[in-house]
Amino acid sequence: MHPTTQLLQNARDRVTFPKEELTKLIYVNDEIYETFMKAQKIIAQEPSIRNHADYHNWSRKEQIIKSYEKLRIMHQHFNLANVVHWAPLLSIFQGTTPTAVSFAMTVPALRFLGTDEQFNLWGPKFLTMEIVAAYAQTEIGHGSDVQNLETTATYDSQSNDFILHTPSVSAVKFWPGELGFLSNYALVYAKLIFNGKNKGVHPFMVQIRDNTTHKTLKGVTIGDIGPKLGYSTKDNGFLAFDNYRIPLNSMLARYVRIENGQFSRHGNEKISYASMMVSRQLIIFIYPRMAAQSLTVAIRYSITRQQFTNDKGIENSVIEYQTQQDKLLPRLATCYGMIFAGIRIMQLVDDNFHRVQRKDFSTLQQSHAILSAIKALSSQWVVDTAEWCRLSCGGHGYAHYSGIPAVYFDTAPNVTLEGENQVMYLQVARYLLKVLSYADKTPDKVPFYFSFVLQIKETLANKDLTNLTTSLGHLLKLTLTLQLISVAKQIKDLINSGKTSQQVWNQHVGIHLLSLAQRYAEYFIYLVFQEYITNANSSIKHILQQLCDLYSIQVILDNPNTLIESGSITTDQYKSLNELKIEMLNNIKPQAIGLVEAFDFNDNALRTCIGCHDGKPYEYIYDWATKDNSVNKVPKAVQAVIDLMGTKIKPKL
Amino acid sequence: MHPTTQLLQNARDRVTFPKEELTKLIYVNDEIYETFMKAQKIIAQEPSIRNHADYHNWSRKEQIIKSYEKLRIMHQHFNLANVVHWAPLLSIFQGTTPTAVSFAMTVPALRFLGTDEQFNLWGPKFLTMEIVAAYAQTEIGHGSDVQNLETTATYDSQSNDFILHTPSVSAVKFWPGELGFLSNYALVYAKLIFNGKNKGVHPFMVQIRDNTTHKTLKGVTIGDIGPKLGYSTKDNGFLAFDNYRIPLNSMLARYVRIENGQFSRHGNEKISYASMMVSRQLIIFIYPRMAAQSLTVAIRYSITRQQFTNDKGIENSVIEYQTQQDKLLPRLATCYGMIFAGIRIMQLVDDNFHRVQRKDFSTLQQSHAILSAIKALSSQWVVDTAEWCRLSCGGHGYAHYSGIPAVYFDTAPNVTLEGENQVMYLQVARYLLKVLSYADKTPDKVPFYFSFVLQIKETLANKDLTNLTTSLGHLLKLTLTLQLISVAKQIKDLINSGKTSQQVWNQHVGIHLLSLAQRYAEYFIYLVFQEYITNANSSIKHILQQLCDLYSIQVILDNPNTLIESGSITTDQYKSLNELKIEMLNNIKPQAIGLVEAFDFNDNALRTCIGCHDGKPYEYIYDWATKDNSVNKVPKAVQAVIDLMGTKIKPKL
Repeated sequence: MHPTTQLLQNARDRVTFPKEELTKLIYVNDEIYETFMKAQKIIAQEPSIRNHADYHNWSRKEQIIKSYEKLRIMHQHFNLANVVHWAPLLSIFQGTTPTAVSFAMTVPALRFLGTDEQFNLWGPKFLTMEIVAAYAQTEIGHGSDVQNLETTATYDSQSNDFILHTPSVSAVKFWPGELGFLSNYALVYAKLIFNGKNKGVHPFMVQIRDNTTHKTLKGVTIGDIGPKLGYSTKDNGFLAFDNYRIPLNSMLARYVRIENGQFSRHGNEKISYASMMVSRQLIIFIYPRMAAQSLTVAIRYSITRQQFTNDKGIENSVIEYQTQQDKLLPRLATCYGMIFAGIRIMQLVDDNFHRVQRKDFSTLQQSHAILSAIKALSSQWVVDTAEWCRLSCGGHGYAHYSGIPAVYFDTAPNVTLEGENQVMYLQVARYLLKVLSYADKTPDKVPFYFSFVLQIKETLANKDLTNLTTSLGHLLKLTLTLQLISVAKQIKDLINSGKTSQQVWNQHVGIHLLSLAQRYAEYFIYLVFQEYITNANSSIKHILQQLCDLYSIQVILDNPNTLIESGSITTDQYKSLNELKIEMLNNIKPQAIGLVEAFDFNDNALRTCIGCHDGKPYEYIYDWATKDNSVNKVPKAVQAVIDLMGTKIKPKL
Repeated sequence: MHPTTQLLQNARDRVTFPKEELTKLIYVNDEIYETFMKAQKIIAQEPSIRNHADYHNWSRKEQIIKSYEKLRIMHQHFNLANVVHWAPLLSIFQGTTPTAVSFAMTVPALRFLGTDEQFNLWGPKFLTMEIVAAYAQTEIGHGSDVQNLETTATYDSQSNDFILHTPSVSAVKFWPGELGFLSNYALVYAKLIFNGKNKGVHPFMVQIRDNTTHKTLKGVTIGDIGPKLGYSTKDNGFLAFDNYRIPLNSMLARYVRIENGQFSRHGNEKISYASMMVSRQLIIFIYPRMAAQSLTVAIRYSITRQQFTNDKGIENSVIEYQTQQDKLLPRLATCYGMIFAGIRIMQLVDDNFHRVQRKDFSTLQQSHAILSAIKALSSQWVVDTAEWCRLSCGGHGYAHYSGIPAVYFDTAPNVTLEGENQVMYLQVARYLLKVLSYADKTPDKVPFYFSFVLQIKETLANKDLTNLTTSLGHLLKLTLTLQLISVAKQIKDLINSGKTSQQVWNQHVGIHLLSLAQRYAEYFIYLVFQEYITNANSSIKHILQQLCDLYSIQVILDNPNTLIESGSITTDQYKSLNELKIEMLNNIKPQAIGLVEAFDFNDNALRTCIGCHDGKPYEYIYDWATKDNSVNKVPKAVQAVIDLMGTKIKPKL
């Protein structure tokens, strides 16, 4: 056996839990797991869609054209309108997220905000991809603040239609994915002007390109917005209208309507949250799986990579170094928490949608708050994890051949898109303050995952930390409780001192509000972790508990200030927490290979040559660099060098 | 005046210090400043080297070929062998770092490790770029651990030359910059086998390509290693030898020599540190200036970007939000500390070199320790700063047109190259423990910047925190002192308990050692900051003190645990530190525009459309996207979409 294959095999032999039991939890149900395994296999075997080692040498133009070819072939194998089919593909597909916006944003918005007739008019065509529709909300000058969008839709009572117009450069629609090239429709958010009055921002389904020739229609200016940090094949676009007429039926009319020249509102407008929830939920569900890909690569590489000789004259696997364990293992533990939270949230959001469709809005706000908290925490965590995994692999992690930079590129936008993280956190903080106000007066209104506000007295009174390991959950709850009480008091004092609530919010407590919301997100993940441990098969209860413990202790150690500041833990207890963590690193280390391989990614899905199932990082690196690297086959480059060498520097030394 | 130009102008009018005084400090002396300003201007005016908005749409091949063309034109304007000429270019040049490796690594190594005859043989040809030579140390399987390199140079006593050989895949040279295409020579580090004995790793100057045809010589395999996270035009290369004969004179022979069939060593081998110091020093000197570029963009954009209406119905500039200030202003303060440390270190390293050339090694170790500490702290800080600046600009920060992603790409490798940061920190920790051991026995041997070890008693005894603002330096020193004492004790206890020192180092205290070294780096920056304040023109003493205060408090708040754990600060003092920071954010905010504009970057150097001198972010974004984005001119892409749309999904919903 090849020596590095042997190293991996030895590590696998030391794993003490049945990894297939974790696999079941990760993939929720057999349908998702089997679809995913089938998709992985098909993609690996199909030459035109499998991983191209040379991909990151290509121009954006080449990558974009290739992505459409790939998408065509994908249609032969997968039903891309079905989330169970396409969602898992996002994490294993090189360079593009096929028609995700149309399916994940525009279709749900149409379903929630359009009438049944409107859904039947366009919906089926979206689902068969006869039409692809972008979700055109953001403008160059306006992102998160939807109410200040500038694009206007002016109702013309004479012709009974709308005139869509972009009044300034800052009003140009900017950033919508799949708008640049792919879409022939767009769901455009515009300020409705009705009889000279601003009736607020509403969505309009607008044709922007010809269905056959795909040419841009007259009155519309449209294109790709240029290169970005990552997402190179995603055609984020710009869109401007020059007094562009659209029919009355363009306005999605479940909640607002113009009939017989009258404007009217119907039902609960909170529903507008609901359509954004689908895409946020997918971000939470899918992307921690890409962090798991990076962790798989980094853990395998850390076992096969040997550096500096030990006491016995043998080079150590770098996983043996405490500093390497510290980079990877707490993140591995957290990854499980993120995955479980993603699944739980999918269930909460599903439940909420069914309620909303029955006009029951009772769970809308809490789902929105949880979703926002975890969207923000999870998206930043995924990016950071990809970066730490990259750094843990030294130079080879920096190479695209490691597969890790692509994870960074494909996940970095999630921090900003679909609700910028900071805006999300501030909304969560606002909700937490609201829930706190329920605690005394209307405790029945406190939702299950926020019940810590009903336990404030007990939480503060509990001083028993004799067993630190079993107190970790308490410490997380205590931190959250203390921060919530503190910020609520600060706000109250500042308002009593004469500040407006806007001043307080924007200029005085912003940093504390962000911190509070993060503490809630961390605590929610702990709660879900506990649910999973309770319900787990006994063969994996122990490893899940270890993961939850390491997760919790890392969270506490990352932000111990509230506990220390309040005198909730002593100096000795703080030191013990540090020691406990090091003990946990030692416990998890031998299980690490099993924990990443429970995700069952094949080599093609990992897009790696340094973290393959059979090891051999150096052989694969050398193979890819010597055989698959197209820049080595460019005679022009050699000529450019020769020309350059001809122009020697004049010695003005 | 355009409204966003007006916003910037209003902000400039509020600045209260003379920014040209800071400019003088940033650029050290008139020669550097004037060269830099001239270079910025030339690059902005020369169409073939100025910023190309479309650059990040190109393939690597196109970018590489363009970079050589650019380099040719650069030769007409600049003396690229002169550090004062080319170093400032690194931060303002799109996509390549012209021949930096040859000038910054190979030439110094040749100067320090070669004999005078050897330097005269090759050095002048390097400096005129008649020869370009890579620095070929790292192998696929071996990075930081130079003594375990596998490439062999076997001395053949019959022919009195060496046979250079790559015995395995893991021994292939991998990662050296400028090796893939550009170099015709390489300084190859190989294990010298002399009469069957391993005489350690030494450098050999080896020709690898023909000087005229640039063809690879027989016995050599060479090429580019493939795409990476960033640095796309840098031809990091691989290099393998198949029993390749090189003359006796190839071995750099100042410290080791083979004469008359005898191997001998001469002088102090510590010198091998010295040549690496040049490139590390440049990393410290140059790259914080790229962080300053990101900060310039982010601060200007934060003034011109308005979001959410305030009490008066006007949209707020986002710089008015506390959370935005918290992202940017502590980093802006730290940036000045990093810049000053870079300059101070340049002076220390220069001084050390002059000593070394006189065979005085007395300052070698301390310079190396300071350099390593700041290399590690600074390189990671630059990357993090680029990322936070990007995030602070929302979606537009993510666009390449912002200029910020390129900073991330061009600086990310510095964390890993020229001494991987973690390896650097561990070396610093080792040196700190050594200096601690001097304190009692040989206090004379404690170097100036480590004199805190001579003040341990006073530092621990000082409990006076009545004025927190003037105690910040003390708190930094106290943290460092406490961590050093603690880790020294831990190591002693573990060794007394029977562990080997290697076990202790690798498996028990790694995390604490990293933390200790970071605390030293932070404290060093504080010391330099203080020197600058002392020596500054009175008109800027106050702003420098404010920057140093904000820097120091952020450092303390980021890692308060040692102080809290040891009971060195009380709960109330900790809260006061938080309040003090918020006060400082308010003080620095109106000065921010002056602080970034003291760097005097022109718009071309910033490579931005959202942070230009006259504002207008939206107009420039729209201009670039509509006029300069080549992917909008690709008929093939439209055809690919039409083909795609033709293959409708069969409705298996």
